[in-house]
Amino acid sequence: MLKKLVIVGVGLIGGSFAMALRNTNMVERIVGVGRSWENLSSALGTYVIDAAETNAVNAVADADLVVLAVPVGQMGGIMQEIAPVLSSHTVITDVGSTKQDVIELAMRYMPEHLERFVPGHPIAGAERSGVKAATDSLFQDKNVILTPLPETSDDARNLVKELWQKCGAIVHEMPPKVHDQIFAAVSHLPHVLAYALVADIAARPNASDLFQFAAGGFRDFTRIASSSPEMWRDICLANRDAMVVELDSYLAQVNRMRDAIIKGDGIALQQIFDAARNARNAWISGGSK
Amino acid sequence: MLKKLVIVGVGLIGGSFAMALRNTNMVERIVGVGRSWENLSSALGTYVIDAAETNAVNAVADADLVVLAVPVGQMGGIMQEIAPVLSSHTVITDVGSTKQDVIELAMRYMPEHLERFVPGHPIAGAERSGVKAATDSLFQDKNVILTPLPETSDDARNLVKELWQKCGAIVHEMPPKVHDQIFAAVSHLPHVLAYALVADIAARPNASDLFQFAAGGFRDFTRIASSSPEMWRDICLANRDAMVVELDSYLAQVNRMRDAIIKGDGIALQQIFDAARNARNAWISGGSK
Repeated sequence: MLKKLVIVGVGLIGGSFAMALRNTNMVERIVGVGRSWENLSSALGTYVIDAAETNAVNAVADADLVVLAVPVGQMGGIMQEIAPVLSSHTVITDVGSTKQDVIELAMRYMPEHLERFVPGHPIAGAERSGVKAATDSLFQDKNVILTPLPETSDDARNLVKELWQKCGAIVHEMPPKVHDQIFAAVSHLPHVLAYALVADIAARPNASDLFQFAAGGFRDFTRIASSSPEMWRDICLANRDAMVVELDSYLAQVNRMRDAIIKGDGIALQQIFDAARNARNAWISGGSK
Repeated sequence: MLKKLVIVGVGLIGGSFAMALRNTNMVERIVGVGRSWENLSSALGTYVIDAAETNAVNAVADADLVVLAVPVGQMGGIMQEIAPVLSSHTVITDVGSTKQDVIELAMRYMPEHLERFVPGHPIAGAERSGVKAATDSLFQDKNVILTPLPETSDDARNLVKELWQKCGAIVHEMPPKVHDQIFAAVSHLPHVLAYALVADIAARPNASDLFQFAAGGFRDFTRIASSSPEMWRDICLANRDAMVVELDSYLAQVNRMRDAIIKGDGIALQQIFDAARNARNAWISGGSK
């Protein structure tokens, strides 16, 4: 039983984690920290949190667990603020989409707390944001990645793991570098590619004609281009090295297809299309996607 | 009232057109032409068509309207077959995703019928295919583009236009070159880009790890990579010139974003992401997408 859970950043992820944990009866009191009173009072009004604070320093005293659920770009500032006042029993975790950079921040700003720091990343959420989009089932059957440090204690790791499992999540552990490579490929790259297509089309003199005739395929391909620009800017910069590797691999693939189109090489094109369709269909049929 | 409508290729598009037209009571008899008896008997069994033929030549005699609803790669062969037996009153239309190449085929293979040829493209359909996916509401509120030739008569054009409108579609006319440019940008390019991402990832040694952690954003981005490889190969080759223009514009955009990531230029990245999100949200809020 946790007496006090502090969620810094009561948005879609932080709010949903609070709601899911409340259902488990493993938490006595949930304190939300945020920059906007509007969002915090919405979280209070819907009983997502029991108390609200705009100052993280005031909130974290005596916390059993602090969850950092702010954009990656704000993570360092928060760590620096709270490090001096964290109790020696407080476990800290985060939900950032990149892990190597969050770990670097933790080593710089709260080196005395690494034993109780469990870096994490729930694979959930959508282009919606804010606590109004939060739901207690957001993590049901979703993957959560933990990337513990060599310093992280088993107790801290097991606590965070258990809490995510109680929220219905499937918990995996892997090294932070592997995490960042995997998500550069399957998440960060597609976001950049979707933003690129819409930005490219929106900049044309005939953009309104183009959008008029864009249909369902375009809509789904570009859905993630409605995501938070601030969040994805931070992710691209935080995961720069892996992003460039993925971009170069992808650009090489597109250039091979461009060559095949120019040469009229239908056999090469169809081989690529077949390989892609077969792989995607096998993936889709492998589970609920 | 049409006494005889012939649909060559009773798949998703051809079958749905037949079903929608039957509801209008504007057609007396619908004959389906196909390569596969399995598909044709399914179409017969569900009353999508009244009669089935595997030979287009036998089917088209005395037809009032012939709809060519086969992949673009098969269009020329069919035209060549039926041209000698088409009646002098038969109107011909097609549903091909590219228009300049279909028109070139018509000029080559049925030059004596151009007065009654109305090239068309309904913007509907999905990665599903076959008559079993057909529905009489597929074209409701969907755009249909007609790209008439200088030779096309007003009577033929008006007939085809009226039929599509009776199916619930919104009919537009534009030059074939403009059509091919627009759909290279908003449809053909995204298909190539989605196939490229899945093919790139499927070829990795750690592909199974990557797919294991791919989530909803990846699923929607790549949905169109489950489309028919044969159809999309034909489209890429048929619309080669416009495709290369679009690919190069897109690659330049992605390279600008790659540069910004390498330089750590968060301002430039966020400008692009903001422009894309704003454009997409404006598009989505403009109507049912």
